[in-house]
Amino acid sequence: MRAVQVVGYHQNLEMADVPAPTPTGPFDVIVKIGGAGVCRTDLHILEGQWAEKSQVQLPYTIGHENAGWVSAIGSAVTNVAEGDKVIVHPLITCGLCRACRSGDDVHCEANAFPGIDTNGGYAEYLKTSARSVVKIDESLEPSDVAALADAGLTAYHAGAKAARKLTPRDRVVVIGAGGLGHIGIQVLKALSPAELIVVDRNPEALKLAEAIGADHGVVADGTQVQHVLDLTGGNGAEAVVDFVGEGGATAEGVAMLRGAGDYYVVGYGENINVPTIDIVSSEINFIGNLVGSYNDLCDLMALAARGAVNLHTQKYQLDDFQSAITDLDNGNVRGRAILIP
Amino acid sequence: MRAVQVVGYHQNLEMADVPAPTPTGPFDVIVKIGGAGVCRTDLHILEGQWAEKSQVQLPYTIGHENAGWVSAIGSAVTNVAEGDKVIVHPLITCGLCRACRSGDDVHCEANAFPGIDTNGGYAEYLKTSARSVVKIDESLEPSDVAALADAGLTAYHAGAKAARKLTPRDRVVVIGAGGLGHIGIQVLKALSPAELIVVDRNPEALKLAEAIGADHGVVADGTQVQHVLDLTGGNGAEAVVDFVGEGGATAEGVAMLRGAGDYYVVGYGENINVPTIDIVSSEINFIGNLVGSYNDLCDLMALAARGAVNLHTQKYQLDDFQSAITDLDNGNVRGRAILIP
Amino acid sequence: MRAVQVVGYHQNLEMADVPAPTPTGPFDVIVKIGGAGVCRTDLHILEGQWAEKSQVQLPYTIGHENAGWVSAIGSAVTNVAEGDKVIVHPLITCGLCRACRSGDDVHCEANAFPGIDTNGGYAEYLKTSARSVVKIDESLEPSDVAALADAGLTAYHAGAKAARKLTPRDRVVVIGAGGLGHIGIQVLKALSPAELIVVDRNPEALKLAEAIGADHGVVADGTQVQHVLDLTGGNGAEAVVDFVGEGGATAEGVAMLRGAGDYYVVGYGENINVPTIDIVSSEINFIGNLVGSYNDLCDLMALAARGAVNLHTQKYQLDDFQSAITDLDNGNVRGRAILIP
Amino acid sequence: MRAVQVVGYHQNLEMADVPAPTPTGPFDVIVKIGGAGVCRTDLHILEGQWAEKSQVQLPYTIGHENAGWVSAIGSAVTNVAEGDKVIVHPLITCGLCRACRSGDDVHCEANAFPGIDTNGGYAEYLKTSARSVVKIDESLEPSDVAALADAGLTAYHAGAKAARKLTPRDRVVVIGAGGLGHIGIQVLKALSPAELIVVDRNPEALKLAEAIGADHGVVADGTQVQHVLDLTGGNGAEAVVDFVGEGGATAEGVAMLRGAGDYYVVGYGENINVPTIDIVSSEINFIGNLVGSYNDLCDLMALAARGAVNLHTQKYQLDDFQSAITDLDNGNVRGRAILIP
Repeated sequence: MRAVQVVGYHQNLEMADVPAPTPTGPFDVIVKIGGAGVCRTDLHILEGQWAEKSQVQLPYTIGHENAGWVSAIGSAVTNVAEGDKVIVHPLITCGLCRACRSGDDVHCEANAFPGIDTNGGYAEYLKTSARSVVKIDESLEPSDVAALADAGLTAYHAGAKAARKLTPRDRVVVIGAGGLGHIGIQVLKALSPAELIVVDRNPEALKLAEAIGADHGVVADGTQVQHVLDLTGGNGAEAVVDFVGEGGATAEGVAMLRGAGDYYVVGYGENINVPTIDIVSSEINFIGNLVGSYNDLCDLMALAARGAVNLHTQKYQLDDFQSAITDLDNGNVRGRAILIP
Repeated sequence: MRAVQVVGYHQNLEMADVPAPTPTGPFDVIVKIGGAGVCRTDLHILEGQWAEKSQVQLPYTIGHENAGWVSAIGSAVTNVAEGDKVIVHPLITCGLCRACRSGDDVHCEANAFPGIDTNGGYAEYLKTSARSVVKIDESLEPSDVAALADAGLTAYHAGAKAARKLTPRDRVVVIGAGGLGHIGIQVLKALSPAELIVVDRNPEALKLAEAIGADHGVVADGTQVQHVLDLTGGNGAEAVVDFVGEGGATAEGVAMLRGAGDYYVVGYGENINVPTIDIVSSEINFIGNLVGSYNDLCDLMALAARGAVNLHTQKYQLDDFQSAITDLDNGNVRGRAILIP
Repeated sequence: MRAVQVVGYHQNLEMADVPAPTPTGPFDVIVKIGGAGVCRTDLHILEGQWAEKSQVQLPYTIGHENAGWVSAIGSAVTNVAEGDKVIVHPLITCGLCRACRSGDDVHCEANAFPGIDTNGGYAEYLKTSARSVVKIDESLEPSDVAALADAGLTAYHAGAKAARKLTPRDRVVVIGAGGLGHIGIQVLKALSPAELIVVDRNPEALKLAEAIGADHGVVADGTQVQHVLDLTGGNGAEAVVDFVGEGGATAEGVAMLRGAGDYYVVGYGENINVPTIDIVSSEINFIGNLVGSYNDLCDLMALAARGAVNLHTQKYQLDDFQSAITDLDNGNVRGRAILIP
Repeated sequence: MRAVQVVGYHQNLEMADVPAPTPTGPFDVIVKIGGAGVCRTDLHILEGQWAEKSQVQLPYTIGHENAGWVSAIGSAVTNVAEGDKVIVHPLITCGLCRACRSGDDVHCEANAFPGIDTNGGYAEYLKTSARSVVKIDESLEPSDVAALADAGLTAYHAGAKAARKLTPRDRVVVIGAGGLGHIGIQVLKALSPAELIVVDRNPEALKLAEAIGADHGVVADGTQVQHVLDLTGGNGAEAVVDFVGEGGATAEGVAMLRGAGDYYVVGYGENINVPTIDIVSSEINFIGNLVGSYNDLCDLMALAARGAVNLHTQKYQLDDFQSAITDLDNGNVRGRAILIP
């Protein structure tokens, strides 16, 4: 089959002809790819940033945001059958460690991460596991939802965690109305009754944010902290969900937070650097957020099935993978680039 | 009455003769002091560190850890009567703001803090409010429990918050077995089934920690991170409660924390300074902890009444206030110094 | 002032001329009534059903669903001022007992209940307390929101409790689309992403339910249990919120509940009568629901301010109180009858 | 191998020679039995009470409380190895349904129940699954802990659920200090700081209860409701954990419960039969409790490893199975009867 592979760091990806995967373990599931999301992490992989951490052997097939149809299953698989339309959770998890037994499979002690440390989905077929596939509603298409498998799932996870504590009197600030923030806004709107304030540098992004549910858009032009304080009676918001995490966003975000408030760290780049006395005297919390669990992905697909979460996609044929990569690198992708085999 | 007052910053405290307080508002409560704790914060007040923040007018009476007997009440007070033995919550709160209505009175929007921004308890009598007094068990003496009003309450609050998530398979690390840590250890032992690891520089403090419930004592001699990892199967603990917060404790504490773990910030001094990517990829949380609520103080007094929480005290006559201050400043107080009028 | 009073059981209410209340305690608040809801409980009071329980002395002024404007305040009131538009929580609570200190003021150990055990709001003025008044948004009118003070608040309390556990994949059944159910549906829609199934005998009520957010309406014609099972994959719903509680509703409701599901008891009349073996083997829960707390009322007013919760009202002049009572008794009130002084 | 089998209802069990099980599926685990608990449910099986529900084909091997050593594993098993000392969770679960993915494996949609609907552990070997075996501490012996696999696990599950809400000021009533209650008392003592009141008809059982942690023992001699009210300031307890569930226990238990309290249903026999108006006006909850999850069993084994939970056992050779059954039926077993192959 065709597969787009990393052949060396600081080199372009290359199309290769490789054997299609087949089930070898009892819980293996082979997915015929319907869409594979092109993610900024893929650019970082090519720059070698993940080489040491993943210890992956080159060449290998890249791509960790996948959806498609089940084409073959291992002997013990009972939850999907050939032909089922599925989205693929990014991790393959063991099902037996304490984290997996607690529904917190993302912290599985023995996970694999296709597209990062083993073969991924820029290809015609992907090998994953029964524990990673979620059947999707008949109304959804794999190429439309693929990007929800990782970017969307991360935004869902953080948004759902924040929503659990938010009431109708609370205010939540979303920092960053880009790809993840865009999903985060829809998730918070669907799950929480809180007033939703969105902060972004780009006035166009804020218009879109307001169209999909933001109650207030605040331009990050240097006045954003004061603006948020003005919108929250001078006290700050009960929660901040930070999809940026760099360029000074965290210091500004903390200044937007009310005493006893929660700061959800999603985007990354800079350090959280806050005096312990401030953390103590205002009694604020910093909550880390990794990608969502299998349950989170099921919940997100339930929202997607009823149209509550949508993501704009820009589609490319698998053979045009280099255009997608180049467009993403040059900031020419609106929403999410998707490769279609 | 006699009252020990701040007359100027960088000056010694002075004994003064001032009018005894009387109830003027409907919820006022006058407490005849049975014991007033001498706290490191009192030293900081004298150094002027609180001057700007508190905006207090000099001279005023210092002392924010108080217990005694109700000597007079305002017209609307129904929860205590003259003669009741009480411990005094450090804050006077309004009872009407959202925080107060939610049981989270520590974040009251209109609080007063006797001993910090108004007259405190190094005196024969203290004016506080019906919302601040907790009746204590007949078996307890004000001079024995006074230090639980602030130092103990802070430790209880953090320990109880941590305990809420801990299970028999979890491990919790307490950093610092000094005054607060000492209470924190007893609280965690009473409220949680988790394995309890205590880290301190002082081997004597660790011996005491083990005597009151620690399962393991770890000397902070440079090997403590590795030692904790060894005790936790190489993965780190599910929770760290940091009563130090300075001198590098936070970086070491974070290194002792498991993925998805919780870091409770109680002690302060240095900054939490952690890359957002580490917070995200390990999905850890930093939880701020201020002094406990009125409910926390009631719960702590229930533990004290059954002997589950004890604090060593070193008692001084009120007239000997300068000895207590000097002893504390020179590290010559074991447990907590208490002034007795 | 004019006040409508209970002068005897099994007798009609009578209009009386009584002294207007004035603040006598420090936390008293006098509210000029803008609207007073006429509730089925008022009919039960006249039938003498509450006489023993309330121990109220006749004559007294009836009416426990009130909203209006603050006209006078006691010496210690700081949260409202003369002229403020307010809705009145039905209970006067002490603020000092454990329940009040925990935000659970409905279980106050020393509460009063105007309209039930002391003078209520079928009058020009009502005496209540600072702890009972919630300022409402400028866009809201007292006569429009009065019925949210008790009926609406009960529905909010149960709906919000249920919403806390509901996810996008869950299904919640509301039994009864009458007055309380009507509010409950709007609350569940605002607070929860679950699929919402409404069961009622009246097809017209179901049409309305679907117009305000129900995903499915199910006619209670004897097939409703099977119908709900069909809508839930044969397993039943994760939650049932029962606003009926009589006429066999509870047995049918339990049959609609999934294993590990939650049954919220709101309406009352019959017994919950279920074999313990069924409770154990299906591991279901029965959750009691009283009227909501002060915080619940604040949250409900936040939803009302943004138009998320609406209630149809049928207004009467205070002097026409008998018409309102008669119309309610004869089933001729659509939505809620409101008296306007 | 030897196996004790049900050969017909209302007939005695019979020893048979059957083939030892071997791993046939990838997650199969064969356990060499070290101890098999004899449970009252086994008597009910012989009386035919489970015949319709389990649809089991006769003859089959009985016994659902098992512990021992792993003797063989399927191809995909990674969490245990041959020779590991294990306790066996009573259910074999699928690992793929929503309940299993949420840590709530007891509600697995496709479970099997060895000893009930397939071959159990009154035998030399048992076939179970990787998802059902918990490695136990070196200090524990299979024949000592076997009875914790089902009876103990049920008590742990209910106790741990109750403990999650209990604070130092709360009171919890345990009804029934027999087998399950005995474990429940130890669990509540280990996990909760609440005051513990135990009610039982048997003064000897209460003595034992007090020896293992009960703060008060109350004889169920007709005065028990009043006695509990006296011990709780007239208000009742915050929680009741009912291990009896028959003979009037539930009505009495509800009378011991405070407003807003929680009633944990564990024992069964009679109906919960309570007016909805009482559930609403006191806002109490009834919480169903089935056997615990795999995680609960891991937690319970952590408590057992440190000696916090102990169970008296009366051991019999497997060949003496009939004596064990007869002794149990005649009330001649103290603690739990265990068969040892």
